[in-house]
Amino acid sequence: MVIKCVVSYDGTNYKGWQVQPGLITVQKVIQDVLAKMHSGNHVEIAASGRTDAQVHALGQVFHFETNIPLPPDQWKYKLNCMLPKDVRIQDVSIEKDDFHARFSCVSKRYDYYISLNENNPFVRNYMSIEKRPLDIKQMELAAKVFEGTHDYTSFSSGKIHEEKSRIRTITEVSVHKYDEHIQLVFKGDGFLRYQVRMMAQTIIEAGLHHIEVEDVRRMLEAKDKHVCRYKADPCGLYLVEVNY
Amino acid sequence: MVIKCVVSYDGTNYKGWQVQPGLITVQKVIQDVLAKMHSGNHVEIAASGRTDAQVHALGQVFHFETNIPLPPDQWKYKLNCMLPKDVRIQDVSIEKDDFHARFSCVSKRYDYYISLNENNPFVRNYMSIEKRPLDIKQMELAAKVFEGTHDYTSFSSGKIHEEKSRIRTITEVSVHKYDEHIQLVFKGDGFLRYQVRMMAQTIIEAGLHHIEVEDVRRMLEAKDKHVCRYKADPCGLYLVEVNY
Repeated sequence: MVIKCVVSYDGTNYKGWQVQPGLITVQKVIQDVLAKMHSGNHVEIAASGRTDAQVHALGQVFHFETNIPLPPDQWKYKLNCMLPKDVRIQDVSIEKDDFHARFSCVSKRYDYYISLNENNPFVRNYMSIEKRPLDIKQMELAAKVFEGTHDYTSFSSGKIHEEKSRIRTITEVSVHKYDEHIQLVFKGDGFLRYQVRMMAQTIIEAGLHHIEVEDVRRMLEAKDKHVCRYKADPCGLYLVEVNY
Repeated sequence: MVIKCVVSYDGTNYKGWQVQPGLITVQKVIQDVLAKMHSGNHVEIAASGRTDAQVHALGQVFHFETNIPLPPDQWKYKLNCMLPKDVRIQDVSIEKDDFHARFSCVSKRYDYYISLNENNPFVRNYMSIEKRPLDIKQMELAAKVFEGTHDYTSFSSGKIHEEKSRIRTITEVSVHKYDEHIQLVFKGDGFLRYQVRMMAQTIIEAGLHHIEVEDVRRMLEAKDKHVCRYKADPCGLYLVEVNY
């Protein structure tokens, strides 16, 4: 039986999603709880994708296989009883055998938060901070450059696997200004490693007048992983939802 | 010269306001920074009152004496450069010599936050959590019992100093319901030790139908520090403002 879980986590105290030897990661704490529920046997979970250290999630999705015949509400209840308070299961469903959290995903949404108040002690782990004035119009123009179907090689700093496509379709990059913060919304069929953080900081740099909208376009068109040296702080990033 | 500072802090990582040997407290980190600014000499700061471990502040006030002739903006800037990110000075002013953060205070406001969503991983240090249904009408009625001028001995668990008055005037105790949380607002000329947390939990117990509004009235009238065994979690409490 394949179980799909939607999970929220405060990434502050985690070295990201993926299991790494000796480090506390979100995948590890969930797998540890599942092992307890399966008589100590290892249960591998597969997520829609990794998140970096300090990155948060409102609606990350993972799946696993099990023989335990619990109803979804009981899975949610039992997992939340055993998980730490900063990792909370929001929803559980039983899926068809061919469901896969990563391969079945058709689109994702990430939000990025920028605090404009450098002296708010409550946002330090939950937003990046920008005390310099930001030109919202320039941010909006830079954001629009990223929309569409493009090869996003320039906005990924991961290893280049020649055989893997770096073409993605981004349906929305929008900028929303509030009294004390700015929210960036990114929706697309998928994102490369570090892509959202690199796009977010590029939009911020446009808002600071450090670069022009034309520079953003040139960077995108270069399809060169060395042209963008911007990467926003991880703590402002939220994986909001994964759609299937 | 007497300097008055308004300070916000995220109390999560502090053992409260007051200096205690071997513990990290908000008063200590501020005094350490002031000592650095005064050639290593100790500078004692006096707050409007203590806050408990894990309690937060939006507008705590403290004062200190100094001979350093900095303008207020420079005090704010320099202090914030040296303070940890979870303690932020919001405002600095130069006061008359007879100003005292505690004795000159005429009123205070505390807010208390209760999350109704037990599975939000982001509020665990910032609200108490109540997953059982709360009857808002009963909470409002219980809150009203606390308004007025009363001897609040029953809602303090500190040591009783016979010579000190436990009479205070509370001008507002109100209950505000939002989608996923409840906010309690407490305004008064002063509060005894643990008083706000004890009143907050008493209001919650009324909302849970564990006690009646008449029980709250009887507890208040008993003027007996043993009658109330309720005390809300510290992490939901915020010192919002101190008025002079």
